[in-house]
Amino acid sequence: MTLTAADIAAADRRISAHISETPLLHSNRLNRALGADLYFKAECLQRTGSFKIRGALNRLLQLSDDERRRGVIAWSSGNHAQGVAAAAAQVGTPAVIVMPHDAPHIKRTNTESFGATVVGYDRAGQDREAIARHIAAERGLVVVPSYDDEAVIAGQGTLGLEITRQARTQNVKLDALMAPVSGGGLIAGTGLAAKSLWPECELIGVEPNGFDDHRRTQMTGARAVNASAGPALCDALLATTPGRLTWAINRDYVDRFFSVDDDAVSAAMAILSVTFGLVVEPSGAVGLAAILRNRDHFRGRRVGIVLSGGNADETIMNKCLATGATIASQMLNQSDLLLLRE
Amino acid sequence: MTLTAADIAAADRRISAHISETPLLHSNRLNRALGADLYFKAECLQRTGSFKIRGALNRLLQLSDDERRRGVIAWSSGNHAQGVAAAAAQVGTPAVIVMPHDAPHIKRTNTESFGATVVGYDRAGQDREAIARHIAAERGLVVVPSYDDEAVIAGQGTLGLEITRQARTQNVKLDALMAPVSGGGLIAGTGLAAKSLWPECELIGVEPNGFDDHRRTQMTGARAVNASAGPALCDALLATTPGRLTWAINRDYVDRFFSVDDDAVSAAMAILSVTFGLVVEPSGAVGLAAILRNRDHFRGRRVGIVLSGGNADETIMNKCLATGATIASQMLNQSDLLLLRE
Repeated sequence: MTLTAADIAAADRRISAHISETPLLHSNRLNRALGADLYFKAECLQRTGSFKIRGALNRLLQLSDDERRRGVIAWSSGNHAQGVAAAAAQVGTPAVIVMPHDAPHIKRTNTESFGATVVGYDRAGQDREAIARHIAAERGLVVVPSYDDEAVIAGQGTLGLEITRQARTQNVKLDALMAPVSGGGLIAGTGLAAKSLWPECELIGVEPNGFDDHRRTQMTGARAVNASAGPALCDALLATTPGRLTWAINRDYVDRFFSVDDDAVSAAMAILSVTFGLVVEPSGAVGLAAILRNRDHFRGRRVGIVLSGGNADETIMNKCLATGATIASQMLNQSDLLLLRE
Repeated sequence: MTLTAADIAAADRRISAHISETPLLHSNRLNRALGADLYFKAECLQRTGSFKIRGALNRLLQLSDDERRRGVIAWSSGNHAQGVAAAAAQVGTPAVIVMPHDAPHIKRTNTESFGATVVGYDRAGQDREAIARHIAAERGLVVVPSYDDEAVIAGQGTLGLEITRQARTQNVKLDALMAPVSGGGLIAGTGLAAKSLWPECELIGVEPNGFDDHRRTQMTGARAVNASAGPALCDALLATTPGRLTWAINRDYVDRFFSVDDDAVSAAMAILSVTFGLVVEPSGAVGLAAILRNRDHFRGRRVGIVLSGGNADETIMNKCLATGATIASQMLNQSDLLLLRE
């Protein structure tokens, strides 16, 4: 594994004109409620509503002219699909996306609206990778993996680089940095960038309960595989086993993994909605969920939390916010969640 | 009137460590739908949920030791109240806030939670300024006006300075810049900052229908007074006549005023929610509402739009989003609003 912080800096130069710098948000009131100093990277405000466009752009901006003429293919439950579709539109290459039939409506609609061709599959009975590789071979398309690819990992790492830059502007050195984990690309790139500046920063990956393959792999040393491939509330965190390239990085760099329950995820979504007026999708809120369930671990520390995406269907969102507000009020001993806004 | 861009730069140095740099957001898809190139300054993500903390901090950080010991007083329907309360907590001075009984619950609750003392009044029958000046005289408190004060205007101007800085980073020169107008402090400060860099930039103020005192004052030259002082959907834009200091600036700098209807405001809120996953309060969404109602004026132009705040009670918000989604779909000829996200 040769990926370094220099590759991430190069990716940053390559893609920065095409993406947004998303804010690093801070709420004194929430910090008082939780007893920690939290910095939220609101990547839900990124183009396409998630970080995935970073890796996709870094890969697609390196296509040869010939590859660009033929096109690209990817498989994804949604955010990578949108990232690849948007990046393909940006660089002017055709894109085919293999998506499960049960992907959130908003993610599928958006993917198609970038001009990509969506091929559906049945999550339970069909192998999306086999479908994609078959089409790729047939049409000579470049496969854009959602995590197990150096250019993709370097692209996601630009998010970590941005966090370090923004934190330094605020004279802040983070004691810990948390990101959601599915295949492990986001935390691998982000961790590489953060650890190269702050070697002591505790790097923490967060998975949903039942999809905690990284946590179990780290504990046992043996590559764990999840029993289920979904569907689940955190629809973007369903990869069944750590990536090969990503785990080669994460094995060395990630200090620990937490896994979280859906109630804590809903509570985190409600808190983020009330505190910042932000729509964060379930998968994007697992970092704060882990803090809610492990308050002692974070007490008094400066913690960066990646809010990785905001693409939630309205019905899911409304349900999570309604149940989450009640759960959050109990967790924080606050009868009035409104008190959080600052 | 002696306020200059240098005062705004000084305010920026004074307050920047205490506030957030809020993002300048951009959506290719929304731009295609509207035929313009829009840059949204998401100040709803600012501490206290609105820009008002900028002016309040700039004023309070210049209190003498003696003034700080005695305390400050302000009157406000909500966002200035929260701004002064938070700034007072920051600099360690007591604060009294005179607020109407019908102020949004979220704004009153938040104001109190910063430790400020709230004194209620009846918007129809009582003069809030008289109440505040009486208490100020009695207790020797410093009055912090919500707009007619040079330090407050300079503080709000830091928002404009930030926009110019962020736009230049993106190699963008704005053709027009829009901000909501109540007493005129935000657009006065923001306009001063923007015009000093871009003299040709069209500065546009936006008011709700029925509260268009600036628009009428500009048309006739005579200081107009609104017939109503509210309540109204845009609860932060109810000042009845242009400020004295602010109008001395706005008379020379603001190129035109638009006024907007509540339907367009709700549509703008729905579009912002779907496009960026952002909660923007009605008063904060008037800029986009004006674009929706005056498409030809903005076609093909680069336009900055200040989203000034995000403090909406949940019931108001839900009602606006529900009606706004339908109205927006009709306005944009899009049956599926989801198509906007990018």
